[in-house]
Amino acid sequence: MSDDLLGRAEALDAADPLAPMRDRFLTPDDSDLVAYLDGNSLGRPLAATARLMDEFVRDRWGGRLIRGWTDEWLDWPERLGDRLGEVALGAAPGQVVIGDSTTVLLYKLARAAVAGRPGRRRMVLDTDNFPTDRYVLEGIAAERDLELVWIETDPVTGVTPEQVAAAVDENTALVLFSHVAYRSGWMADAAAITRIAHDAGAFAMWDLCHSAGSVPVELDAWGADLAVGCTYKYLNGGPGAPAFAYLRTGLQDDLRQPIWGWMGHRASFEMGPGYQPARGVRALLSGTPAILSMVPLHASLDMLAEAGVDAVRAKSVLLTGYLIDLADRWLAPLGVELASPREPARRGGHVTLRRPGFADLLDALWEQGVIPDYRRPDGLRFGPAPLSTSFAEVYQGLSSVRTLLEKHP
Amino acid sequence: MSDDLLGRAEALDAADPLAPMRDRFLTPDDSDLVAYLDGNSLGRPLAATARLMDEFVRDRWGGRLIRGWTDEWLDWPERLGDRLGEVALGAAPGQVVIGDSTTVLLYKLARAAVAGRPGRRRMVLDTDNFPTDRYVLEGIAAERDLELVWIETDPVTGVTPEQVAAAVDENTALVLFSHVAYRSGWMADAAAITRIAHDAGAFAMWDLCHSAGSVPVELDAWGADLAVGCTYKYLNGGPGAPAFAYLRTGLQDDLRQPIWGWMGHRASFEMGPGYQPARGVRALLSGTPAILSMVPLHASLDMLAEAGVDAVRAKSVLLTGYLIDLADRWLAPLGVELASPREPARRGGHVTLRRPGFADLLDALWEQGVIPDYRRPDGLRFGPAPLSTSFAEVYQGLSSVRTLLEKHP
Repeated sequence: MSDDLLGRAEALDAADPLAPMRDRFLTPDDSDLVAYLDGNSLGRPLAATARLMDEFVRDRWGGRLIRGWTDEWLDWPERLGDRLGEVALGAAPGQVVIGDSTTVLLYKLARAAVAGRPGRRRMVLDTDNFPTDRYVLEGIAAERDLELVWIETDPVTGVTPEQVAAAVDENTALVLFSHVAYRSGWMADAAAITRIAHDAGAFAMWDLCHSAGSVPVELDAWGADLAVGCTYKYLNGGPGAPAFAYLRTGLQDDLRQPIWGWMGHRASFEMGPGYQPARGVRALLSGTPAILSMVPLHASLDMLAEAGVDAVRAKSVLLTGYLIDLADRWLAPLGVELASPREPARRGGHVTLRRPGFADLLDALWEQGVIPDYRRPDGLRFGPAPLSTSFAEVYQGLSSVRTLLEKHP
Repeated sequence: MSDDLLGRAEALDAADPLAPMRDRFLTPDDSDLVAYLDGNSLGRPLAATARLMDEFVRDRWGGRLIRGWTDEWLDWPERLGDRLGEVALGAAPGQVVIGDSTTVLLYKLARAAVAGRPGRRRMVLDTDNFPTDRYVLEGIAAERDLELVWIETDPVTGVTPEQVAAAVDENTALVLFSHVAYRSGWMADAAAITRIAHDAGAFAMWDLCHSAGSVPVELDAWGADLAVGCTYKYLNGGPGAPAFAYLRTGLQDDLRQPIWGWMGHRASFEMGPGYQPARGVRALLSGTPAILSMVPLHASLDMLAEAGVDAVRAKSVLLTGYLIDLADRWLAPLGVELASPREPARRGGHVTLRRPGFADLLDALWEQGVIPDYRRPDGLRFGPAPLSTSFAEVYQGLSSVRTLLEKHP
């Protein structure tokens, strides 16, 4: 039975149109990597990224120095934002900027949204959203004297349109959900939920951390109002790379974020008295943009554009489907449970498997170069990034889990 | 007269104990740099930084991948903060973190401070503070219904203890000033002003952007409550490198910043319900730390520690003194005015010269590889970073200004 499954990995790899892209990623000479299955936590660097970064440090920073700002850097937050919007977010130009962290951008956008719905005192979110999303709204609720409405979500599935319809009303200022849930990988029906929020007169905000570069995102088509996400997962921006924010054009004259800094000013270098927000999405900026850590995005967005998100998604569905098959055949008999949607249409790019004691397995797997992630209380989370992960790696990874479970049942 | 001044540059360079450190900075092979006099806007990269960054991308990010977080990255904001505090800020461990941008940290700390003085409705600042400092407080005043008290500062000198004493009262929550003013380079009497703020029961916050790594800073000795600054000037962190924040130990249990994120949580990876601030200065964090852009600081803080801030300051006073002598001899007769303190003890690491029409000179200077900065309305600002700048560069730079002024009077 194992041979059959290995043969399937080999056949899938042989038929994979994205397979050649794997060679573009960096692997250190002394690498211990056997199966990297955590591309949804930290994407791998491209060889092109190492070259770009070295060139940047030496020639741009070292050679152009302060002149680099007027050469090109001042525009990077919007130029890279536009590129990201086009390649991965279904967003027309002028609506996306790169900057800050997901948390800080969540704060700015959520504050802007609730101020844009004066008199409405509720924000709707779900209990399984990523911690930072929950904490940020909790903090804003405390400071603005607002109320949080919690949707209790199932540990496998996430938020549904029906749940949202039951939670919103004429007092709702904002709904905030993850498009793809960070644990289960549940992919919400963003278009339907956005419509429901709008029918209630509320703003709809999406956390795209686990979506961008992995599944098709259509912010403009959904009619989304606001969105945030990070660039260090499927966008291969590097550890702690800057985040992105989307604010739809129609709201840019009305919604105002609260952190007023010189880079969000209409005329930054006038340095005059009195804050005047920049026109358009640039008003979301606050401080000096994190140029150095935007360098990798140039390489990875080019690669993603070349591959196309649809091809990425097609491979992703095959990768996670194959992973679930392996789990069904090898791990279910050992007490492992699937904690992700079985239906491909509702499943994002990662899969969580649960079993009591899984926490104890992580160190042994990491030492073997088999690298999934762990999510409390008992989940191993596998995020095979389609551009860098082979089906053989999925086979290796699950095979290692099986072997360890058989040894230490 | 020129020869005499050139001889003095040569003699000063020959006697400069920091001169050998200049060779540690990167200069591209095809460099057009003649005189880099803007180290107070963007510091130059070290050769060690390029090596560290390349090794980081390949081996740490590329090889350790997600394991890097538990290997070491999770602690970087505090570990690098402690190191910076020791090397450049006069801050005992546990009070400094690296993260976000100066603007975002200003916002967090100022919000925390005014919440810590409930009932007090005023924030005191000066008209010549850096734009972001003014805009951030303006935004907070608008959202919290507070009042700004403006101290009108002279374009050459900055804020004085007498002015602060006249501006604070029992209604003052916070005073915020730059230790070294971004245009004139005026160095405020931080210890005296902090005492005056405390006598009125207000918190004292310092912007150290133009101080850190350039002049001695003694946050603990001053009794400062809060401070922020950037790392891309005299700390050579690279364009848009993360900022730092200081919150003195005695206030850490009481002051709460408003952007509640998973990395400022007491137990980030519990991912549980309800925000619980981390103990100590880590509660200032919000989102995922910008690891990639903290890499250069490892090299530059080592170098600064080796040199010592006192030696840096000693050379800085000689560099700016020599620059002022050249300006007096060459440029004053051409209508150029010193817009910085003549007294070394009140002058930070940069000097601004004013003359109507200076804006038109900048492009020509930059094209010649002579790189000062420009600050409206008519200032050329010279920031000779002591670790990377020679006296000969100052000579070359001012000589170019003179030649251009003589050609286009």
